[in-house]
Parts: sequence; C-alpha cells; structure tokens
Amino acid sequence: MKAIIQRVTKASVAVGGDQINSVGRGLCVLLGISSEDTEKDAEYMVSKILNLRLFEDESGRAWSKSVMDKNFEVLCVSQFTLHCVLKGNKPDFHLAMPAELAQPFYDSILERMRSVYKPELIKDGKFGALMQVHIQNDGPVTIEFASPSGPTDPKMLAKQEKQQLRRDKCCPKGPQEPSREGGARRHQQASTTSSSAEGDEESEKAF
Amino acid sequence: MKAIIQRVTKASVAVGGDQINSVGRGLCVLLGISSEDTEKDAEYMVSKILNLRLFEDESGRAWSKSVMDKNFEVLCVSQFTLHCVLKGNKPDFHLAMPAELAQPFYDSILERMRSVYKPELIKDGKFGALMQVHIQNDGPVTIEFASPSGPTDPKMLAKQEKQQLRRDKCCPKGPQEPSREGGARRHQQASTTSSSAEGDEESEKAF
Repeated sequence: MKAIIQRVTKASVAVGGDQINSVGRGLCVLLGISSEDTEKDAEYMVSKILNLRLFEDESGRAWSKSVMDKNFEVLCVSQFTLHCVLKGNKPDFHLAMPAELAQPFYDSILERMRSVYKPELIKDGKFGALMQVHIQNDGPVTIEFASPSGPTDPKMLAKQEKQQLRRDKCCPKGPQEPSREGGARRHQQASTTSSSAEGDEESEKAF
Repeated sequence: MKAIIQRVTKASVAVGGDQINSVGRGLCVLLGISSEDTEKDAEYMVSKILNLRLFEDESGRAWSKSVMDKNFEVLCVSQFTLHCVLKGNKPDFHLAMPAELAQPFYDSILERMRSVYKPELIKDGKFGALMQVHIQNDGPVTIEFASPSGPTDPKMLAKQEKQQLRRDKCCPKGPQEPSREGGARRHQQASTTSSSAEGDEESEKAF
C-alpha cells in the first residue's frame, strides 16, 4: 500500500462539476492499494497517516504535531495509479488491486481511520469516479511512503533471521546487501517504536 | 531523486499571498533531491517527466500522450520532504541534499527541462520559500517514482555483474534476493528501452 500525503490548507473533490466533499487544514491522502495488501498494511497505513507529525506546535516548532493532535481533517482519495510500472514511458497498473476487491478494502480502511480518529473529520472522494481533486498544498509538504511488505508474523521473522545467519556463514565475505526480510523488520520496528527524537536540527530545513 | 507527478487541469503557486506562477493543463511535479543525486539522475528524471504518457490521444484513448505531445505545461516545485525517514512518527530529512547545494542543482534541472521542451511551458515555484501550491489533480492521476540509484557507468556495472556471478557460484542454493546493483541495472534498462506496449488492457482501469 502506498500513500502520498500532502499537508493542506484546504482541499476538496468534485465529480462532474459538483463538489462532493471538502476539508480545511489537515491532510490530503492519495492511497494506492496493491494486489498483495492485507489488513496489516491497512493498520500500518492508518496509524502512520493519523500520527505523522507534520504540523507545528503552539510555539511554532515544526514537525511536532499530528493531524489528530491538531484536530484537523483528512481528505482521503483512492489512487490506483500509484502502483505504476513503466513500460518505457507507458504506465502499466497491473500491480494495483482490481477495483472489485479494492473498493470494499478501501472502504474498510476509511472505517478504520474513522474509528481511530473522529468520523466527522475523515472525508472521502468517490471510488472509481473521474474526479477533480483540488489540493492546496501548504509548504509544500509532501510525504510518500509504502506499508511494509512481506510477512510480519514474529515467528516467521525469527525463522528468516536464522536463515539469514546461515547464509552469512555460507558467504562470509559477500557484500552486505539489505535483504527483503531485513527491510520488513526495520519497517516494523519503525512503526512500533515511539520516537524520542526531539529538536532534530536536520528536520528544521526551510521549504 | 524522487518525483511526485500529478496530472492537472490547472495549478499555481503563491508566496505570501501573491501568485507567482501558474499553469493550465499539464503536470505539477514535486521534486525531491537527495544528497547522492548526480547529473545522471537529473537526466533520467527530466526524460521521464516529459515523456510519461499520462494523457489521452485525440480518440480518447488513455495513457497515450506525453505532456510534450499535448503541448501542455509543467509546474515544477522543489520538495525536500520527499526524502523523509520516519523516526517513529517524526519525519527526518537528513537524506535530502542541503539547500545550498540543492538550489543550483535544482535550477540546472529546470534548465535541462526547458532545453528539452519549450522554455515558456516550464514554470517554477520559489526555492526555499514557504509556498501555497494549488493543484487541481485531474482524475486523480498521480505517479511517484525515483531515479535509479547507484553507479550507472557501464564498466562498473559489468564488474558488478561478474561479482554477482561469483557470489551465485559461492551460494548456489541461497534465496535470490534482488541486489542493489541488479535494481540499478533494471532501472537503467527501463529508462533506455522505448516502449512498444500498446493497448494494454491493464492500463485502462477506471479512477
């Protein structure tokens, strides 16, 4: 699952010239579901979207508060084109989950978001419709990320870790390429570790 | 280098309440430069942005024409936040190229875009300023991609290929994890192979 998260001053979505939804300050999320996504990906993504610290605190300090901290809104729009593979310069979208499966899954993600936060502050587009999405990107601030891929079951991860150790013994002088499993582990840690990184100078860059 | 490419009906950018640039139909590109990016990445990215087939042809066939084919415009805005690493829920941007290096590099990318296409059809934000970027995403259609990472020198790639063969001989039964070098090679091929994929049904999904 991939998300493009834009911090917005306001955003709205129109179908056939009629505005169907709008938000004030908050986030506009373009959400792309792949064929391999599961509930785990949905859980991760909803948690990240709602807890990402993209807003200032009361003293003007950047990257301090989440959309939930600020009581801001979220406009979420399904976007299968994020699972694009280029064939030369022509986009191909066979990795995206087919619409008949993606629609109920997408609806369940919205429900999850509403249950974690406040239902009235989560707005939607119209799945499958040709939309005009008006986004006033504030900064701009745009974050793109993907949910962790691969198995996240702890027993499975322990097994993979042992396999990795055996491979390292077999090829002790081989270059240390990050494995897919290692990546999944790191992702999982990142999603469950609460941050204590405060006042990071690297984060205070200008736009 | 990362880019978020949104197909737009129109887009504009304002600084301090004053609109400084605007485009009609075309693309809004949010461009993130990392510390490791080189001219090769810039070359790849400019080529992809200008040649990506995100527009219909005259008969209404989707994914057929590029922004250049249609004589449409491009609004390009620098966006360091795309090189975000999450520390828990706090974004960290130490992978982004520092502003004093990124600004001349970014300007050179714009110049390259103007020289490949038409200078008057490439618009810009204001590097380093706090901007409001108004994006009317048409579809929506949003593509995210990164330029190939790692060395792209043919001699270097041949050397790496030999090293990979030696590793495979050393560990013939090991799982086939994609290596960084392999990824770079595949990317490079994708960027230089002209597409002959026409009328792909997978590409005709609804929004």
